[in-house]
Amino acid sequence: MGGIVVQTTAYSIGVDLGGTNLRAAAVDRAGRSLGKQTGSTGLRESRESVVGDIVASIQTLRKRFGEQQCTGVGVAVPGFIRLKQGVVENSANLPSLEGFPLRDEINQQLGTPVILENDANAAALGEKWLGAGRDVEDLVLLTLGTGIGGGVILNGRIMRGSDGMAGEFGHMTVIPNGNPCGCGNAGCLEKHASATAISVMARLLQLGELLTAEQVFRIATEGTGEDAHKARRIFELMGVALGIAVGNLVNIFNAPLYLLSGGPLPAWDLFAPSMIAEARKRSFTFRNTGTRIERAQLGNEAGLYGAAYLPFLEAGAPVGFK
Amino acid sequence: MGGIVVQTTAYSIGVDLGGTNLRAAAVDRAGRSLGKQTGSTGLRESRESVVGDIVASIQTLRKRFGEQQCTGVGVAVPGFIRLKQGVVENSANLPSLEGFPLRDEINQQLGTPVILENDANAAALGEKWLGAGRDVEDLVLLTLGTGIGGGVILNGRIMRGSDGMAGEFGHMTVIPNGNPCGCGNAGCLEKHASATAISVMARLLQLGELLTAEQVFRIATEGTGEDAHKARRIFELMGVALGIAVGNLVNIFNAPLYLLSGGPLPAWDLFAPSMIAEARKRSFTFRNTGTRIERAQLGNEAGLYGAAYLPFLEAGAPVGFK
Repeated sequence: MGGIVVQTTAYSIGVDLGGTNLRAAAVDRAGRSLGKQTGSTGLRESRESVVGDIVASIQTLRKRFGEQQCTGVGVAVPGFIRLKQGVVENSANLPSLEGFPLRDEINQQLGTPVILENDANAAALGEKWLGAGRDVEDLVLLTLGTGIGGGVILNGRIMRGSDGMAGEFGHMTVIPNGNPCGCGNAGCLEKHASATAISVMARLLQLGELLTAEQVFRIATEGTGEDAHKARRIFELMGVALGIAVGNLVNIFNAPLYLLSGGPLPAWDLFAPSMIAEARKRSFTFRNTGTRIERAQLGNEAGLYGAAYLPFLEAGAPVGFK
Repeated sequence: MGGIVVQTTAYSIGVDLGGTNLRAAAVDRAGRSLGKQTGSTGLRESRESVVGDIVASIQTLRKRFGEQQCTGVGVAVPGFIRLKQGVVENSANLPSLEGFPLRDEINQQLGTPVILENDANAAALGEKWLGAGRDVEDLVLLTLGTGIGGGVILNGRIMRGSDGMAGEFGHMTVIPNGNPCGCGNAGCLEKHASATAISVMARLLQLGELLTAEQVFRIATEGTGEDAHKARRIFELMGVALGIAVGNLVNIFNAPLYLLSGGPLPAWDLFAPSMIAEARKRSFTFRNTGTRIERAQLGNEAGLYGAAYLPFLEAGAPVGFK
């Protein structure tokens, strides 16, 4: 007697080049991780080492879980992706890959389809697939780190922009005469609300020199007196800047969900009240709809899972928990 | 002998409720207007008169060009559209239709499919179909009037947002402590760059009380001395506010084309230089891509044609010049 054979072992491979070492995972269609790999060389080493490490990690996973069952490979990269060319640009993290045809190189070495994607875009897709955005088709993600990145999911897919540069929320102007930014602008969101901005505000408010965002967070939550007050004020100001930006994004996208992720997320209770109050004040769309502003859920796994989701999306198959 | 019969007379009907009287047009798939109608009652009259006028205008066109060949009706409405319900909300222009199930009412009276759309969204679609955006799949339109509206076209379709409220560019915060807005915010774009804002700036700069934007434009272009200087400065400031907003939109969407339309467009040469300089300063995406900021081309016909395009889009047929 015949029966329906369910191919449960089809999987894709996600690679995340966002840290100091690469991480890779084989992920099945339901979003379950079958196995993970961590690269053995630093991403700031030579091109040969970095590319060799990427290829070796993918190859290890493919051998372990079957070459036939591998739908494809998605690679999350900090920096801009020239989609048509499959080339990475302006990646501070991956200097050796600047302008290098990474997609075609991996593809040639392994004979498997490869999709490159910006890391914040991949994180937004990961959150949509398996994280805080599971129940929506549209969401906007802001990633808070040394800078601020972003990704937009519309109809379940990444809004890439015509040059792969959409979602650069870190360089939205929130305070026209605000802090100068390396991009040439003044008052960019990331100069007022990133982890770096928290350190700078700590210096300006004479809380201390060279404090990390984490140290400022600790002073805010465990400190006392004037210092604790200053530290809490810093997160409040961060929230105001984020609220201006998120309020604008709500007016622009009218998406049901706005997510924040990244290192400063543990300080949510310190910056979220002023952020939400500011967004509420600055957006009647926010006030008159069920718009939610929430924490992302996948932490630094979001980009990895989002990258793994890309080959499934490309293949057009229905996937996910829903 | 048989032959391929090309049905050249298929058309749709666009209705624009954006002015004081309604305008309607029968438009074929190539974007040619077959005939136009202007409503006979003011749009601020009773619901019965307004709905009767809409139905009569559509009916006149259908009788003239054939009921069978009519693909459907698109209606551009100032205000928010609750898409699922087919209801108009918050339309200052159409007080009698507030909360009224306009789509189903027209549909019942005429038995033809009806699609409602926000007027700025319809204008953006019109420009994409037949205007300045003919050669792109993605564009962002800002409509300058008493307020500022907007529409976003992505992959050739309107980005509506989950409540039909996307593209509210008029209420983007461009100057956090700027002019107060009726929406509850301060520093909304439309308080610094609309036709109304031009009048207000003329008063504040003591150029004159109760001057219209057009009068300020005339002083700027035909006046002399201090007055002409002040008038030109007003358009320059308008350009700065627009440039902050457009710079943000470029960072967010990375679309190839940003369009401006509306009453103040003849003052382009007065506000565009500061607008483009500001956007350039505030967006490295703008500086590093082929992004264009241009005038819309269809004037106040854009919404009418965009509305007419909606039934063709819905029907999924390939249309247009391309």
